[in-house]
Amino acid sequence: MGGDHAPGCVIEGAALAVQRGGIQAEELLLVGQAAAIRPLLASHGLSQVTLVDAPEVVGMEEGAATAIRTKKNSSIAVAMRAVQAGQAQAFVSAGNTGAVVAASSLVLGRLAGVARPGIAAPVPTRSGSGPCVVIDVGANIYCKPEHMVQYALMASEYSRAAFGKDRPHVGLLNIGEEEGKGNELIQAVHALLQAAPLHYGGFVEGQDIMGGEFDVVVCEGFVGNAILKVAEGLGAFVREQIQSAFAVHPPTAEVADAVKEAFRKLDYAEYGGAPLLGVSAPVLIGHGRSRPHAIMNMLRAARMAVAKDVTQHILERLGQPAKESVT
Amino acid sequence: MGGDHAPGCVIEGAALAVQRGGIQAEELLLVGQAAAIRPLLASHGLSQVTLVDAPEVVGMEEGAATAIRTKKNSSIAVAMRAVQAGQAQAFVSAGNTGAVVAASSLVLGRLAGVARPGIAAPVPTRSGSGPCVVIDVGANIYCKPEHMVQYALMASEYSRAAFGKDRPHVGLLNIGEEEGKGNELIQAVHALLQAAPLHYGGFVEGQDIMGGEFDVVVCEGFVGNAILKVAEGLGAFVREQIQSAFAVHPPTAEVADAVKEAFRKLDYAEYGGAPLLGVSAPVLIGHGRSRPHAIMNMLRAARMAVAKDVTQHILERLGQPAKESVT
Repeated sequence: MGGDHAPGCVIEGAALAVQRGGIQAEELLLVGQAAAIRPLLASHGLSQVTLVDAPEVVGMEEGAATAIRTKKNSSIAVAMRAVQAGQAQAFVSAGNTGAVVAASSLVLGRLAGVARPGIAAPVPTRSGSGPCVVIDVGANIYCKPEHMVQYALMASEYSRAAFGKDRPHVGLLNIGEEEGKGNELIQAVHALLQAAPLHYGGFVEGQDIMGGEFDVVVCEGFVGNAILKVAEGLGAFVREQIQSAFAVHPPTAEVADAVKEAFRKLDYAEYGGAPLLGVSAPVLIGHGRSRPHAIMNMLRAARMAVAKDVTQHILERLGQPAKESVT
Repeated sequence: MGGDHAPGCVIEGAALAVQRGGIQAEELLLVGQAAAIRPLLASHGLSQVTLVDAPEVVGMEEGAATAIRTKKNSSIAVAMRAVQAGQAQAFVSAGNTGAVVAASSLVLGRLAGVARPGIAAPVPTRSGSGPCVVIDVGANIYCKPEHMVQYALMASEYSRAAFGKDRPHVGLLNIGEEEGKGNELIQAVHALLQAAPLHYGGFVEGQDIMGGEFDVVVCEGFVGNAILKVAEGLGAFVREQIQSAFAVHPPTAEVADAVKEAFRKLDYAEYGGAPLLGVSAPVLIGHGRSRPHAIMNMLRAARMAVAKDVTQHILERLGQPAKESVT
């Protein structure tokens, strides 16, 4: 039920994942208002999907904490409980991000040793060496230095599992590259990262996130959220400018396709959503505007995280012996 | 001597300003290593320009505080003293931003009533209603709520003078638009802005800065610097992607020009640099990569700020009766 185009778009994404994404319909558990979803499943040939009824819906603009407290039968809460109960191994949603984060902590629980879960957003890079993971992009707007070091460790594990980086190169977002730059938080994190068991490369400035030198960029949640949204706005702005230009001076079909392909690299939908790292099962958070292609890629990312046991790797990396949840 | 292409590029910019920017050569006072600059002035027909020798140069990566303390005869320090002494009415540089900010406070001094100067960056907007001024983009990385309210007031005055906005619409950058979103700093600033004599419109998210709804967007200096640099990096990334696409599928000259024109709207060079607001004379800070066209536009912005007496308007807005400097 989550996202601006739910539930139709989510179901189309599930169908796409089965047709083209290598996912079996039997692997899918869809949670939402059954009466609305059932006919859509039939028309998409998804009869093998398990459907779980959840009568309530958390709106995209609802306060997260209140929504999770009061709507015990929202699709987010019910799906999260299904994961906690072992009926599913991972959670995917294009719904209210705050509510997903809150439900993850409340229902799944944080991994032992994790102080704060963080949202890791994969962004495209110039080098073609795969996405750079930016963490945190909005789960935690009161970041302490130790939280940010944990983000570096967790995102390194994710980069390894999801993007095949053997030794992820970690940078710390700052407003200059020279030693001494930045505020007290940045200085404290910098010292901790230098001492941590990481391939830490120091400060990175915003213009270099997409340069391909870094596989992981750590930042405070407010900053990460702001830069992600600015990037989104700017991408849309440039696309509009070029579309206006093309309206006056129409390009050949080949040129138009080439430009479209150039913009495709920027598309969030290509990267399988943003994982919430640090909770006891894979949680993938998608853009509210997610289209079927994005939903498919989120389902694939969730499956990859389960197959590669990213959660267990994070747990081991953070130095805890057993998989247990701390709430 | 400031910027990646100085002094040649700065002198070319001065020449361009005289040829095409409506600036008289007699109005210009160029400060730098006279032996290097003099021959360039002659070859650009700038014999009417006043040349002031400054033997030292602050490097682009030098620590600002140290540079200003130790290099009393750098072009930044000498030019700033020329403004303070009344030999010039405004300061323009594409040099070390930190050093310009430090020298502005030390030599010119803050305007009475101003707690912290802030850098205001004009960014393009979709609506065609003129740039949106984002403040602060890096002068102050320890922003307090009262600093940010002053930024809103100062940037409103700049928006009025530079871009003709009668009643600038002010937004506060946040990670959501709903009441209650954001951290404690944002909540405190929000309350103060609601009570301030401003046309305050509430929270704005990163993707909406370029939407045209807001004329001024206030943010903390670290965040503002980060979003500006991310925007720069993304703009370059998209441009590269499209250039690569065009290398394979060459567009017609008309289409190529149309795309170039679309990117021109994004170009920092169009907006005349970023003013440092809150010091006792107009100070325009340019990108280190400033080309002659950008230098010309900075000179024009400086002249506009003098002609419209932006400094006096800011002083009056902040409630101080007389123009005096507080260091």
